[in-house]
Amino acid sequence: MVGSCHTCEDCSNHLENYCPKMVQTYNSTYYDGTPTYGGYSDLMVVDEHFVIAIPENLPLDACAPLLCAGITTYSPLRHFGLDRAGMHVGVVCLGGLGHAAVKFAKAFGVKVTVISTSPGKKQEATERLGADSFLVSRDPDQMQAAMGTMDGIIDTVSAQHPLLPLIGLLKSHGKLVMVGAPEKPLELPVFPLLMGRKIVAGSCIGGIKETQEMIDFAAKHNITADIELIPMDYVNTAMERLVKADVRYRFVIDIGNTLKAA
Amino acid sequence: MVGSCHTCEDCSNHLENYCPKMVQTYNSTYYDGTPTYGGYSDLMVVDEHFVIAIPENLPLDACAPLLCAGITTYSPLRHFGLDRAGMHVGVVCLGGLGHAAVKFAKAFGVKVTVISTSPGKKQEATERLGADSFLVSRDPDQMQAAMGTMDGIIDTVSAQHPLLPLIGLLKSHGKLVMVGAPEKPLELPVFPLLMGRKIVAGSCIGGIKETQEMIDFAAKHNITADIELIPMDYVNTAMERLVKADVRYRFVIDIGNTLKAA
Repeated sequence: MVGSCHTCEDCSNHLENYCPKMVQTYNSTYYDGTPTYGGYSDLMVVDEHFVIAIPENLPLDACAPLLCAGITTYSPLRHFGLDRAGMHVGVVCLGGLGHAAVKFAKAFGVKVTVISTSPGKKQEATERLGADSFLVSRDPDQMQAAMGTMDGIIDTVSAQHPLLPLIGLLKSHGKLVMVGAPEKPLELPVFPLLMGRKIVAGSCIGGIKETQEMIDFAAKHNITADIELIPMDYVNTAMERLVKADVRYRFVIDIGNTLKAA
Repeated sequence: MVGSCHTCEDCSNHLENYCPKMVQTYNSTYYDGTPTYGGYSDLMVVDEHFVIAIPENLPLDACAPLLCAGITTYSPLRHFGLDRAGMHVGVVCLGGLGHAAVKFAKAFGVKVTVISTSPGKKQEATERLGADSFLVSRDPDQMQAAMGTMDGIIDTVSAQHPLLPLIGLLKSHGKLVMVGAPEKPLELPVFPLLMGRKIVAGSCIGGIKETQEMIDFAAKHNITADIELIPMDYVNTAMERLVKADVRYRFVIDIGNTLKAA
């Protein structure tokens, strides 16, 4: 985001991301009425309040997605108290958001279980990203064995999917936090929420103060996003591959070098 | 409830109500394998841990439903931080649970709005029970005007109903707490949760320590349930009237006097 009203209760509480007048970095309308172009620009002039300092040791390209996927997962882990060593947190779906959630949760000292429909992602999750375990959500035996073991779950899925099995994975007072936004409503079984005072919450990026905190934390723990750096003229191909989830895990457009080469 | 395991994490944290081995007062199986008869008994022998002391100034009959409807609404108001003077809390549906929620929320100094499908309940809600305002949930203009004004909502409805308008009534970071248990899943729109870091939670009665605290609070603030006291032979008629929601707001069976008269 690149703007907000600066005066509402959320802005006063460092939660510009929940300000009703928040201006998104891309495809939004800026204070002066012009469109915002976000990552498709080679430079932008912004309200200094919305500038994040990137520490020297973080590469700019692999750091860029942290300003979205990073803060989107860091903020709920912190806000909902899922950042304490020894806790057990599930991460649903290993994509751009999911791989960031695994990295931050591991850096907090949390035990991480990746929950996925694709058995093929197990090696990636546990060996490369360091998740402690892996659950195939379509395997009822695996899911049954993990019932009631998690303090929280970061659900990064943007498509329709059942919540009941995820609520079942939570301990009493566990928290299922949605950070993806399925278009249609999901089915919410109420009785299983009641029986353990569980909650289903939503969370959306983070405030600027917390985003800076996240970046500093990432620098300290050497956390970056896994990216594929592409030139500008690859964008349409990248879009096609995005639709097929064929990227590990974020495309980053190298605008500067594309313009230099042109 | 009249029993629990006494050893699990929830039992250790005064949350016997979330113990997987919790024994309900009625229609459950007691430690010794016998059925529990709850309010249909003239006496019972119970684990002393589950006995609540009733202060002298509370009448036993009008106090009885507080051990269910009272604690079911008191506990989430306290646990989810909806008990602070100056807050604004909605109560959905004015029945046994709802009228208790209004009384406790008012005693906490909270501004209370009753949300109901029945315009006819306005006078009861505002004049007799002391709610500050009343919203007809089927009136889009009234609902629109109240959007984003509530810190929390206690939803006591056990039937299917839409959550989207209720989530809309919440401020950012607001909490919708379900204490009724609809049989079928409800539709949960995810995007509106994300946009204000809102939560949907469930809550089920309360622990014994908190139940005693609730009863002592009720005694101090002269809170009792509104009841209709009935003899045992009226039970079947009462059941028929319950189905039609024709009671303000709880039937209490006077077992002792029924037996004396027999």
